[in-house]
Amino acid sequence: MSKQVKAWGATSPEKTEPITITRRAPDDEDVGIDIKYAGICHSDIHTVRSEWREISYPLVVGHEIAGVVSTVGKNVTRFKVGDHVGVGCMVNSCRQCSNCHDGEEQYCSSNLVLTYNSKDPKDGSITQGGYSQYIVVDQAFVLRVPESIPLDKAAPLMCAGITLYSPLNHWNAGPGKTVGIIGFGGLGHMGVKLAKALGSEVTVFSQTNSKKELGFQLGADDYVATSDPDVFSRLSQKFDIIINTVSAEIPLDLYLSCLRRDGTLVQVGAPKDQLRISPHSLYARRIGVNGSMIGGIAETQKMLDLCGEKLIFPEIETIPASYIDEAYERVMKSQVQFRFVIDISTM
Amino acid sequence: MSKQVKAWGATSPEKTEPITITRRAPDDEDVGIDIKYAGICHSDIHTVRSEWREISYPLVVGHEIAGVVSTVGKNVTRFKVGDHVGVGCMVNSCRQCSNCHDGEEQYCSSNLVLTYNSKDPKDGSITQGGYSQYIVVDQAFVLRVPESIPLDKAAPLMCAGITLYSPLNHWNAGPGKTVGIIGFGGLGHMGVKLAKALGSEVTVFSQTNSKKELGFQLGADDYVATSDPDVFSRLSQKFDIIINTVSAEIPLDLYLSCLRRDGTLVQVGAPKDQLRISPHSLYARRIGVNGSMIGGIAETQKMLDLCGEKLIFPEIETIPASYIDEAYERVMKSQVQFRFVIDISTM
Repeated sequence: MSKQVKAWGATSPEKTEPITITRRAPDDEDVGIDIKYAGICHSDIHTVRSEWREISYPLVVGHEIAGVVSTVGKNVTRFKVGDHVGVGCMVNSCRQCSNCHDGEEQYCSSNLVLTYNSKDPKDGSITQGGYSQYIVVDQAFVLRVPESIPLDKAAPLMCAGITLYSPLNHWNAGPGKTVGIIGFGGLGHMGVKLAKALGSEVTVFSQTNSKKELGFQLGADDYVATSDPDVFSRLSQKFDIIINTVSAEIPLDLYLSCLRRDGTLVQVGAPKDQLRISPHSLYARRIGVNGSMIGGIAETQKMLDLCGEKLIFPEIETIPASYIDEAYERVMKSQVQFRFVIDISTM
Repeated sequence: MSKQVKAWGATSPEKTEPITITRRAPDDEDVGIDIKYAGICHSDIHTVRSEWREISYPLVVGHEIAGVVSTVGKNVTRFKVGDHVGVGCMVNSCRQCSNCHDGEEQYCSSNLVLTYNSKDPKDGSITQGGYSQYIVVDQAFVLRVPESIPLDKAAPLMCAGITLYSPLNHWNAGPGKTVGIIGFGGLGHMGVKLAKALGSEVTVFSQTNSKKELGFQLGADDYVATSDPDVFSRLSQKFDIIINTVSAEIPLDLYLSCLRRDGTLVQVGAPKDQLRISPHSLYARRIGVNGSMIGGIAETQKMLDLCGEKLIFPEIETIPASYIDEAYERVMKSQVQFRFVIDISTM
């Protein structure tokens, strides 16, 4: 049976407020999840403000979802009522293209269904995200949260965590590898923790040294202020992988000069403008600039299992739903250490 | 003993003419080579015209060198008098950095010595290139030319050949892989031949269809005119590797849309301006943009052996030395099919 549930929706680009939404009746493959926590991602804000494209209001965003299974369809074998679970940025895909077949559903070439603001093939509705009490998701897109991870801290792993883990995993971060992380916010701090967990040496590139001590506390081996012009020559050809989590335009050629031969700079932030790169920066040492977008379902589970085993959690500030608009303002000013998580019980 | 030899040198940005240069006496590791043919590379023209940096005139350029060994130092074990050999873009390197150690001398991080306009560590002179009768090169940077390759056709393999072979080899072009080649000139036509020799399916992206028949004759499976706007949607997500041989600015995002997940666009041309790339083009399918610069010595030998075995030769137009200035004009207007080769006996 479909269900009316409380949610916190954007009713205009400037405002979120309590609304009621309808969740479809779970089908045989679906899992019904009582949401306990939802992280706030930069993408939520871009979407709500119609900065990426015009949206229809009201819309409920949120794709860092952690909760408890409350109902399962009759074909659901992977989960049972009471399980701790998570849902990230996607809730379905075509499952037939080569990308889906390879477990890279995030690059589905046919019909990727995002957790919010996508057309849901199961009922034709526009998907509504995690700032709500309950969600229904096909079991193939539900993640198991290890018991060792508190649910509030599990939420940001679903997007911030996998967004950093996937490129680290794909480009083989591990012992003997040097990793640079540009930006030390919600994404960047997870990059530091995950790269360390994988055994890499990690350097943070931040605009200033204001969070330097915190950087070392969270595991960074080095922390440099990019306002210091000597940094780039000092770190010349040091890194195998640099992950850029910054959405603003930065002088990429300087960072590329810090990569070793065959090194790669991975863009996970989403700046509005085109990237500008000198061809010399690339062919001087067979350097690559790549993009990476979240990660596949199996890869996300692998990350959660790693975090559960090594007790890798994001640093969070838990807030009530009524604080969302203010939290958005603080995210835009980088005034959060490091991720806001909404306590859904306050809804 | 050092040797005075005839050469054809640039005496100003506008003019090349006969000059005499001195080649050092071969040391124990050196090979003396009677040059028979030298290819004309775009880089020669940029250098002569001081377009990359100011040069001192006169300078002899040319880094596509094919000839016959005429003398060997006493420690030279790999070559004997009479051997057919080649020399490419580099004549020495530090041999100690990790890049040299890995056989990637072209990315030497300490002291790459180019075939012309570099400081020669052996005698402190400025290296002079292949538009001359004779050259002295350390055996470690001399390539063996298989007997099945005519020397005139061997010359362009030393730069144009390896510039295309190296990325094809590095990014695993082979059976089941689809390769796109942007530009159908001196570099591009070698890309078609080499990609086919490696077993890939090859498409040429050219501005027009004027060389389409020739493209098919040289082995292309498809040949498209990029002036047709439908081309990019028709070839959407088709390629594993696209190699850009064009030095002018082109709309890279269109070409990136033709790459499969995890595909890469490799820049081997050297445009003056920064490349501009939408971040979305990269993260949509974990796409990469890479640079590649010639290839290592062992890799160049591997390419020559492949060309010798499969009879892969460049298409050339042989010219006398007195035609060099005119040839430069024609290269700049893309009026050559596909590479000029100077017959050094005309010097």
